[in-house]
Amino acid sequence: MEYQVSAIGVIHTPYATKEKAPIQGHFHPDATGTIEVLAEFAEGLLDIELFSHLVLLYHFDRANDVELVRHPFLDDAPHGIFATRHPCRPNGIGLSIVKFLERKGNLLKVSGIDVLDGTPLLDIKPYVPRFDCFPEASEGWFEGKEKREKPPGRE
Amino acid sequence: MEYQVSAIGVIHTPYATKEKAPIQGHFHPDATGTIEVLAEFAEGLLDIELFSHLVLLYHFDRANDVELVRHPFLDDAPHGIFATRHPCRPNGIGLSIVKFLERKGNLLKVSGIDVLDGTPLLDIKPYVPRFDCFPEASEGWFEGKEKREKPPGRE
Repeated sequence: MEYQVSAIGVIHTPYATKEKAPIQGHFHPDATGTIEVLAEFAEGLLDIELFSHLVLLYHFDRANDVELVRHPFLDDAPHGIFATRHPCRPNGIGLSIVKFLERKGNLLKVSGIDVLDGTPLLDIKPYVPRFDCFPEASEGWFEGKEKREKPPGRE
Repeated sequence: MEYQVSAIGVIHTPYATKEKAPIQGHFHPDATGTIEVLAEFAEGLLDIELFSHLVLLYHFDRANDVELVRHPFLDDAPHGIFATRHPCRPNGIGLSIVKFLERKGNLLKVSGIDVLDGTPLLDIKPYVPRFDCFPEASEGWFEGKEKREKPPGRE
């Protein structure tokens, strides 16, 4: 099964390079960015203001080759790509949950964003705690991993 | 920006038809399904057993045409598609968070699944509460919406 996806917009952030982008928005809750939705899709934003948090799906457009087992940024042990959130993954789809601050037409200001400036947006979904929040979930190997700089040459 | 995505596996569930599939896994926490990852990607599952919950991204392969404003299943008022989780959306990418029960090779047994049998799998990510759980988030128009049957002819 193959099919074509195309950007519905673009994500503007302060992070111009991979070195500057944070590992996870969680570690930079105050970082703000702007989601620009293409005019042809703007009608689909009706009622988005009802939500405080949004799920963003986007394309890791500057990722390198996929490696099925690799070192993630937050750990010094290798893991399977599906046990990490690393960008270099099959289909290259990223997911971030961001706080929704303000809408001006087809521009959505958000915080807690962690993607590269210019990242192609694939979808926006409302974050619904009843469906998406599982406080009892384990942290797996992320347990105890704290904010750090990206290890040099790690990608 | 356009690019090609292709299935890394297939999701097996008890739901053969749209009418039988639940609106959200939240309403059917005991429903189980099996994620079958293609052999060529199985190596990427290393350490996935460390996690209790997984994020699944998949293709709504039997969705109808996109309508940017539409009635979702859980409400009788229309909303913009990006303020709903409806399958008929640009790029047709679905997201579900499921409970991980058991792994046998490239087969992952999960519960709380809400997708159609045979749905093409695009990605698996570990669910990490620190990154993904926002109990303070608003429910938007989902507030107070409880489990119900899909309204007939709604898609």
